Amino acid sequence: MLTTTDPRTGVTVPTALAPTAPEELSPITAAAAVAGAELQRRSRAWRAGLLRALADGLEAERDGLVEAALAETGLAAPRLQTELTRSAFQFRLFADAVDDGGYLEAVIDHAADTPMGPGPDVRRMLVPLGPVAVFGSSNFPFAFSVVGGDTASALAAGNPVVIKAHSSHPLTSERSFTALRHAADAYGAPEGMLGIVYGQSAGAALVADPIIAAVGFTGSLSTGRILLDIIERRERPIPFFGELASVNPLIVTPAAAAARGSAIAEGLFASFTGSAGQLCTKPGIAFLPASADDIVATIVDRARDAGAQPLLNARIHASLDEIRQRLVDEGGARVLVAPHAGDEGFSVTPAVLEIAAVDLTAAATEEAFGPLILFVRYDDVTQIDAALATIPPSLTATIHSESEDAALTARLTDIVMPRVGRIVYNGYPTGVRVSWGMHHGGPWPATNTQHTSVGVTAMRRFLRPLAWQDAPDAVLPDELRDHAVGVPRRIDGVLRLG
Amino acid sequence: MLTTTDPRTGVTVPTALAPTAPEELSPITAAAAVAGAELQRRSRAWRAGLLRALADGLEAERDGLVEAALAETGLAAPRLQTELTRSAFQFRLFADAVDDGGYLEAVIDHAADTPMGPGPDVRRMLVPLGPVAVFGSSNFPFAFSVVGGDTASALAAGNPVVIKAHSSHPLTSERSFTALRHAADAYGAPEGMLGIVYGQSAGAALVADPIIAAVGFTGSLSTGRILLDIIERRERPIPFFGELASVNPLIVTPAAAAARGSAIAEGLFASFTGSAGQLCTKPGIAFLPASADDIVATIVDRARDAGAQPLLNARIHASLDEIRQRLVDEGGARVLVAPHAGDEGFSVTPAVLEIAAVDLTAAATEEAFGPLILFVRYDDVTQIDAALATIPPSLTATIHSESEDAALTARLTDIVMPRVGRIVYNGYPTGVRVSWGMHHGGPWPATNTQHTSVGVTAMRRFLRPLAWQDAPDAVLPDELRDHAVGVPRRIDGVLRLG
Repeated sequence: MLTTTDPRTGVTVPTALAPTAPEELSPITAAAAVAGAELQRRSRAWRAGLLRALADGLEAERDGLVEAALAETGLAAPRLQTELTRSAFQFRLFADAVDDGGYLEAVIDHAADTPMGPGPDVRRMLVPLGPVAVFGSSNFPFAFSVVGGDTASALAAGNPVVIKAHSSHPLTSERSFTALRHAADAYGAPEGMLGIVYGQSAGAALVADPIIAAVGFTGSLSTGRILLDIIERRERPIPFFGELASVNPLIVTPAAAAARGSAIAEGLFASFTGSAGQLCTKPGIAFLPASADDIVATIVDRARDAGAQPLLNARIHASLDEIRQRLVDEGGARVLVAPHAGDEGFSVTPAVLEIAAVDLTAAATEEAFGPLILFVRYDDVTQIDAALATIPPSLTATIHSESEDAALTARLTDIVMPRVGRIVYNGYPTGVRVSWGMHHGGPWPATNTQHTSVGVTAMRRFLRPLAWQDAPDAVLPDELRDHAVGVPRRIDGVLRLG
Repeated sequence: MLTTTDPRTGVTVPTALAPTAPEELSPITAAAAVAGAELQRRSRAWRAGLLRALADGLEAERDGLVEAALAETGLAAPRLQTELTRSAFQFRLFADAVDDGGYLEAVIDHAADTPMGPGPDVRRMLVPLGPVAVFGSSNFPFAFSVVGGDTASALAAGNPVVIKAHSSHPLTSERSFTALRHAADAYGAPEGMLGIVYGQSAGAALVADPIIAAVGFTGSLSTGRILLDIIERRERPIPFFGELASVNPLIVTPAAAAARGSAIAEGLFASFTGSAGQLCTKPGIAFLPASADDIVATIVDRARDAGAQPLLNARIHASLDEIRQRLVDEGGARVLVAPHAGDEGFSVTPAVLEIAAVDLTAAATEEAFGPLILFVRYDDVTQIDAALATIPPSLTATIHSESEDAALTARLTDIVMPRVGRIVYNGYPTGVRVSWGMHHGGPWPATNTQHTSVGVTAMRRFLRPLAWQDAPDAVLPDELRDHAVGVPRRIDGVLRLG
């Protein structure tokens, strides 16, 4: 049987859940395939309603879900409440996007003469890819797990979903799945539309299953590499959308440090220690002027005074220790505040490290998942350029600067632009807004594709284009018929609103 | 030195071109990186003008280019003329798309309250990926080679391009490159924007080069696999967009065979023998009713009467023979018309094979690049379903049916839809229209991603999203400023025209 551990106490107890046996997987993916065909026969309006029903179903189970996640993740109740709200909001935002229909990227090219002769009638739109495997993360039991963004975007795109439950929160996963399943059943969704598997072997088998058409993954680079290897051994490779690793450099200019040092210290401390620093957008490296001792002193004080927070599991707890040691031994970082463990469970206090910009090498840029920050102190802003180049591409970069810094802000923007997926100005990268324009991705190793896992355009991952040439009206989707209205379409090269 | 061979005679002569030496590659990609940064500083209007200048430059060299390609590919002059026209048209179509700006997928989410608290201002659009390596194909010296769709779409997206010249037509590649280079220089493009390398080793090194950000490839599955392996060994993997293999099933219903048998026979013969059958969209397998002996007889007659056409190179010539033999020996196909070689060079006449639908296995579905078709004869339309399932996913499927076939047409559409990227009705898959709505891709092994290599949306391959959060106006691209106009944008969830 599977066990579950309370990170606040370290106590492990058995659950009633068993790892999914090899012979149990095929019926799940086969049912997903059947459901996929059925989903294609339902309208977008039906699907938008489904997503809203799932949001309602989730919120109806709020108390039980948050209680389960509290015991399995050790994350604070207010954070978990907000996260659940976010997941429900996300389902509803995708419902709006499905209603809007712009995501279909519908195009109609009527038959026409071309310089190469007569051109046929060609119509194109995006269609669902097929059953999607979703691997939830440890750190977001609601936003990137059973009910998270991958599940919501894959369903919004019209695909069935089979979820690999995260081993850190099996009971939260099971409760979340039951909430979704009940809401989907009540709404009349096809039976195999949602599936779940437990255990590492079942997860590996899921990725190898010929019915699975794509994988959404949020987790470590090492696990991502293992799943990519499985995909490369498939007879037919499939797309893998991995959100993998990110150190999220944050830069404070001398002018910003002088003007807002105290506010930046408070904001930065909150950003790297919130949720015990276990966020993929945590600012792990902050560039500070050598002169900004006040910012450092404030953060050092806050870190020394901070109570221990539980980390998600024993592996993350042990790994944080090892990485911190490597940053010192191999990266040459100095320890300004050493963390100490809490009395029980996997708790730790924040760690603060420091290095001179001219001494920064790749060995000091490893991602440390947890409440740890490395200050990179520069004497001159020109030292930032070379130091930034040693940092692996990330999901985000953040620039704190003043209006007098216009040229410097532009230059820093140019430097970070090729290396990240989102640039934050005078704020903090944590707290990713779920909206139409959000991009949560970046060059390898942040992600392995040009897609986002947060925001409306996350749907694009689970869609593929299909073209119909000289098709009779009867076989065309409604959205591609001449007289259809209601979705934005590009007709003979001209974009028209719905 | 590199050699070139006239496929019409088989005579090989030396050229003045040398394989690119290992030490010559770095300066080319380094110059591309510099050019990429410079391109970002130029406007979309500038880039649209560049694409039009390249189209003009290409057409100005038309006679010399077609002459070079005639000698190196053995393709017919009218076909090469049309192909060059198509490549020039394609540059101009991408210029229109760049002017339009819809491809930017611009989104503005103003700061707003959300159920999770205040949300920041988030703006997103697509930006160039970086220097793109383009591997041209043997069979399209203009449309999928130095001047082809990958080059045009990568440049349109704002990226520098480094081309690996195809070994089958080095002189055509060199002339094409010179034509582009002169036009680009005259227009004032940055020097490193276009590069070219020769030879297999240089191609492999190009894919491994850290500066290269993506690869566009049209060619065989086996070469595609080799390049994918190189990418997997890179420290930072990059996207690989491969157009790899396709058998393009074509289905003729009994009603269509009865109503239009003669026209279908002529159309199908032209489609599988045009350009000596060396098209990725060639219908390689045609489902015909057992009763449609007239269609078969007509095509058999045409094939017997046909003169030999040169294949592109010795490898394709030898491979076609081997594959035909395997289709017979291992696939159980019967030979209706055996090909015979021409008097000199790599010429062959068309081959026609046949098998019963109930006997079709995967061994008979291998792609044969050249003028070869396999007829699959069915007694009953229900036999088509299982037979189609043995055929690998393809770029296209084609359905010939009559209006009385409405239910059958719908059923066949449903069957082929998950297996292809384009469905053609009562026409032929060859002759791919270059337009806004065209999709030229499909599930593995047709392509390895959800993208097209023909049509305006081919640009999407070489772009990535970038988000700006709470950015000062000065660092935002013009297209994301509040008061900018001219491009379609989604503002606070509502799509607005330019």
